[in-house]
Amino acid sequence: MSGSSAAVIGLGYWGPNVLRNIMEIDKFDDVYVHDINDNNLTRNRIKYPRISLTEKYDEILDNDNINCVFICTPPVTHYGLAKEALLKGKNVLIEKPMTVSVKEAEDLIRISEEKSLILMVGHTFEYSPPVEKIKEIIDGGILGDIYFVSMSRINLGIHRKDVSVIWDLATHDFSILFRLIDEMPRKISAVTNSFVKKDLKDVAFINMKYDSGIIANINVSWLSPKKVRETIIVGSKKMLIYDDTMSDEKIKVYDKGVELLKDPDSFGEYQLTYRTGDIYSPVLKSTEPLRIEIEHFLECVSNGTKPRTDGYCGLKVVRAIEAAERSSDKNGEVVEINAG
Amino acid sequence: MSGSSAAVIGLGYWGPNVLRNIMEIDKFDDVYVHDINDNNLTRNRIKYPRISLTEKYDEILDNDNINCVFICTPPVTHYGLAKEALLKGKNVLIEKPMTVSVKEAEDLIRISEEKSLILMVGHTFEYSPPVEKIKEIIDGGILGDIYFVSMSRINLGIHRKDVSVIWDLATHDFSILFRLIDEMPRKISAVTNSFVKKDLKDVAFINMKYDSGIIANINVSWLSPKKVRETIIVGSKKMLIYDDTMSDEKIKVYDKGVELLKDPDSFGEYQLTYRTGDIYSPVLKSTEPLRIEIEHFLECVSNGTKPRTDGYCGLKVVRAIEAAERSSDKNGEVVEINAG
Amino acid sequence: MSGSSAAVIGLGYWGPNVLRNIMEIDKFDDVYVHDINDNNLTRNRIKYPRISLTEKYDEILDNDNINCVFICTPPVTHYGLAKEALLKGKNVLIEKPMTVSVKEAEDLIRISEEKSLILMVGHTFEYSPPVEKIKEIIDGGILGDIYFVSMSRINLGIHRKDVSVIWDLATHDFSILFRLIDEMPRKISAVTNSFVKKDLKDVAFINMKYDSGIIANINVSWLSPKKVRETIIVGSKKMLIYDDTMSDEKIKVYDKGVELLKDPDSFGEYQLTYRTGDIYSPVLKSTEPLRIEIEHFLECVSNGTKPRTDGYCGLKVVRAIEAAERSSDKNGEVVEINAG
Amino acid sequence: MSGSSAAVIGLGYWGPNVLRNIMEIDKFDDVYVHDINDNNLTRNRIKYPRISLTEKYDEILDNDNINCVFICTPPVTHYGLAKEALLKGKNVLIEKPMTVSVKEAEDLIRISEEKSLILMVGHTFEYSPPVEKIKEIIDGGILGDIYFVSMSRINLGIHRKDVSVIWDLATHDFSILFRLIDEMPRKISAVTNSFVKKDLKDVAFINMKYDSGIIANINVSWLSPKKVRETIIVGSKKMLIYDDTMSDEKIKVYDKGVELLKDPDSFGEYQLTYRTGDIYSPVLKSTEPLRIEIEHFLECVSNGTKPRTDGYCGLKVVRAIEAAERSSDKNGEVVEINAG
Repeated sequence: MSGSSAAVIGLGYWGPNVLRNIMEIDKFDDVYVHDINDNNLTRNRIKYPRISLTEKYDEILDNDNINCVFICTPPVTHYGLAKEALLKGKNVLIEKPMTVSVKEAEDLIRISEEKSLILMVGHTFEYSPPVEKIKEIIDGGILGDIYFVSMSRINLGIHRKDVSVIWDLATHDFSILFRLIDEMPRKISAVTNSFVKKDLKDVAFINMKYDSGIIANINVSWLSPKKVRETIIVGSKKMLIYDDTMSDEKIKVYDKGVELLKDPDSFGEYQLTYRTGDIYSPVLKSTEPLRIEIEHFLECVSNGTKPRTDGYCGLKVVRAIEAAERSSDKNGEVVEINAG
Repeated sequence: MSGSSAAVIGLGYWGPNVLRNIMEIDKFDDVYVHDINDNNLTRNRIKYPRISLTEKYDEILDNDNINCVFICTPPVTHYGLAKEALLKGKNVLIEKPMTVSVKEAEDLIRISEEKSLILMVGHTFEYSPPVEKIKEIIDGGILGDIYFVSMSRINLGIHRKDVSVIWDLATHDFSILFRLIDEMPRKISAVTNSFVKKDLKDVAFINMKYDSGIIANINVSWLSPKKVRETIIVGSKKMLIYDDTMSDEKIKVYDKGVELLKDPDSFGEYQLTYRTGDIYSPVLKSTEPLRIEIEHFLECVSNGTKPRTDGYCGLKVVRAIEAAERSSDKNGEVVEINAG
Repeated sequence: MSGSSAAVIGLGYWGPNVLRNIMEIDKFDDVYVHDINDNNLTRNRIKYPRISLTEKYDEILDNDNINCVFICTPPVTHYGLAKEALLKGKNVLIEKPMTVSVKEAEDLIRISEEKSLILMVGHTFEYSPPVEKIKEIIDGGILGDIYFVSMSRINLGIHRKDVSVIWDLATHDFSILFRLIDEMPRKISAVTNSFVKKDLKDVAFINMKYDSGIIANINVSWLSPKKVRETIIVGSKKMLIYDDTMSDEKIKVYDKGVELLKDPDSFGEYQLTYRTGDIYSPVLKSTEPLRIEIEHFLECVSNGTKPRTDGYCGLKVVRAIEAAERSSDKNGEVVEINAG
Repeated sequence: MSGSSAAVIGLGYWGPNVLRNIMEIDKFDDVYVHDINDNNLTRNRIKYPRISLTEKYDEILDNDNINCVFICTPPVTHYGLAKEALLKGKNVLIEKPMTVSVKEAEDLIRISEEKSLILMVGHTFEYSPPVEKIKEIIDGGILGDIYFVSMSRINLGIHRKDVSVIWDLATHDFSILFRLIDEMPRKISAVTNSFVKKDLKDVAFINMKYDSGIIANINVSWLSPKKVRETIIVGSKKMLIYDDTMSDEKIKVYDKGVELLKDPDSFGEYQLTYRTGDIYSPVLKSTEPLRIEIEHFLECVSNGTKPRTDGYCGLKVVRAIEAAERSSDKNGEVVEINAG
């Protein structure tokens, strides 16, 4: 295998964070950076004089020393850039959402498998300490059977130019939801509107039903006065709230529940018993999730192991978003998320 | 017209509050109280020795001195009790929800009109100082055009025995929503499930679309760890959050917004400008909403004027709930709220 | 011993709560009520038709059936009323603060002992579930050695007419503090001022030092925009915050701490290690503290046992307040709280 | 005048922030950096390859091109370093606290005046948008006469090695307090203890009295479970809370107050009227205070104008802290803050 250099593609909003972590991890011989905007390049060069800049993607593709490509460009460009990189034999980490269509995602998976290359999606929240802790709590059976999940990700701005608020914000919630619950929802519906700019949905109310009976919803908005990053998970035994805006106490586990008891004195009558117990908030590691994510990618590349957030994981999210968009375009009709 | 006495029907959860206000307002010659549960009667007699108790509804109906009947029984009984009272020539205040079907609600309206009697529905929140203040803010154009409304009314318990969480909790949100925005939503969908007791929906995610483009959602649940009573209203000019769990600052108006500017330097390109300004929280009167509601009813009875929350107002809410239940029973399909 | 009737003296702000609990506990043959304000009497008669009213205290004193007297009048009158009741052989529960001078408190203790009567002080917070839970946590060694306690009890109004904000509000904090920590503080200083009404202190900053090294402070104010009821307790092992304005999570125990480690590699150098762990919030009973307090009093009267908040307990608080007032009058000079 | 280069002395906790701002403002020909710890130097060189490193302070002093020296070392070293720089003709910005004794502070002022050099103290909060806004509100008479100020700055860690929590944290509060209120407090007392490390005070309760009647207190602690950064200011007309931990709504102005009215119907009797009105939270600029501070220093150097936080301003804070420490060492006795 050829050399070990990295290329970061796109230095807009997220790319500089990826670059910073790559520089801090400091495992590559060389780091190349590509952006079509010259200012973005120059600004980062000042910070990291060692990096090599280029405005031509071909220079990245043709450089055999580069074996890892980090794609941090707008979503609509992901497919094209990733495909070319894979075809040139490079391992790829694509920012979320993986692509803007199921077809594109499936194509990338196919190519990566044919070429035996690592294809990973940057679902950063799946590497974050709070989501890891919640996963552990659910898998440990602490919450009991999951009843429902209610998620909100709202605040004022920033409108993206290329994709709707679903592609932009709900991506995070879908990826968290699919990480936490093994089952995929069967049906989805989405009511949305484009208030500020025509044809650019800036608010969406998304509902889901699972075959097992679980229900879930996701509210996303670029138009809300208060920043909310909240997930409520209710199970048969306990309940949990994950509030990502808190500095302390991001997760609270409530020892609360309702039980249905057969009333022995009456025929067929039921009785509900409510339980209210302690609340506890587990301490969380403070490691930066992106750091964990990139280190995981490097490990997968090095060992040839499957990443936790591989192409199939990215595909699931794209599938859910595509279905939500389809429902939204039909005025909120219920749509199947194809199992694919 | 015959005498001026009142009868309170049903002294379970809400009836005692109605009774207390009637006793404090102190405008009736006599106050009668009816409940099929003897304990409920006795308990209240101790508090108010002047009241007359009866376990037989007929004694209320046949008493010509009683001209005002307050129906505070479980929803499924509203129609029967109200109908009989109206037919006996009595003015009626029914607790929310007015009835459990559109047909019932329409029938009560018809009878009250034929008999020229006051038929009022106890949408208490429509008489509450925060909702009144928000109405004033919206009507004053402070928020600009309304974009969307997002409502949550969740907490742990108390499961009702007779009706779903939609009839129980969403009633409040529908009545607030219809008070605040003149237009009725056209389409509705609801995803729900019955987790604790079979056939008793305890969580519901409800989405709505208006012809004008407004979208709205309501989350209700008897199964949530935290008590939430929140309404977010986003308009083209300002945004508002109404948090009814706060003792102070129930309403906050955010001078925030996004505007779309044509970029003069580019052809057809747009530019978004975000505005973040002061937040202000108006002081609210501390009058008990139920007091205002009952005084309004007495005034309407006395002057023969139409109540603000008359039968048509109650009907609108019943229509919305019936549609939400219909959607829920079809797995969340979009359903029309018939204009009727 | 003569009969078993009760008398509630004073029906202003707090008396009606005492009366309500006495009526609910329902252990007395008769309940008498005395107030010099006729309106206060009449208002309560309407609620409790069984009670006997009197505007003359002598009628209470001379009634041998009355063996329990509950004194709920303004603080300056406590001594005179309680003394007369004790001399007439009645058991007495006095509202906090017990008296407005150490001398008065000592005198009441002496009389009650000579007469073998129960003298109890209504330090209601000492019977409240959160304070009980904190006591249990501290006594269980969970917090380790106590380092400091910081208390705030501030809000807008209500100015009392007869006593300063220290007598009015800090009473609660002193009684909680002395319940939680066995040791009495040795030194106290208080900086205060009377902003709204001359000679009526409405803000006080009180500092205390204990012989063992513990320090404590109490901020009280009738002039603060936000209602605060907070106690922070820091120990060598864990830390605790008690926020009485919360409906949920009144107590939070933080598994946080600092430890001083000798650095093995350096001579005499120390190294600090910070520990941040889980936060947990214990569930609390929802019993009304005043109910527990009054039932405790009845039990003590019935069994002749010493109340938990007896005269000596009331005296400690009066001693601390008197010292704080003395300091305040000397511009905040440090003053000894005499052990007495 | 000689050239225009800068030197940053000390690159521990705060120095790198100063350096970053200097690099971003980008007004100096060259930037030199001095630290006795080689690691601190190297780490920053990687970030800013243009800067020149030195482990010898003399090289800074002897370089005539350097006309601005930024002293970011531990407080005990401020005096010596600043004095040498001033004697070498350099303008100096010293981090807070200016020095660790009044004598030192006075000496630096004298030298700077003799040499006609700019001596500024880095009271960063005095340049922060919230403090600026509060100053504007108070000066505009919105709050009326100031009654009292209550300040808390508490959290877990980080213990400094060289100075007490008063020098470390209360410095901020004193500088804010003295900026907001023109009058200096006359008397001060401080109750403290050193819990974790002998002779290193980690908690302090500080009280102050002003000749005009204003009272103030400051609570500082390195040992508190929750981070608090709160200032409550109560005036005769309105009240204000400044909570620096909030991302939104750092400042809230409460239209609340109490007024004393002469009761016309009674002789000499007073009546209190409470007013509760709107709450409003002004929008604040998001500029980094340190940026504003450094730009102000450069402007003063360039124009020869007196900085807003000059040596006298720094001296006031040192005077207050010295008095608080003196009180603390006398077990909390009241001490005069000499006007000097």
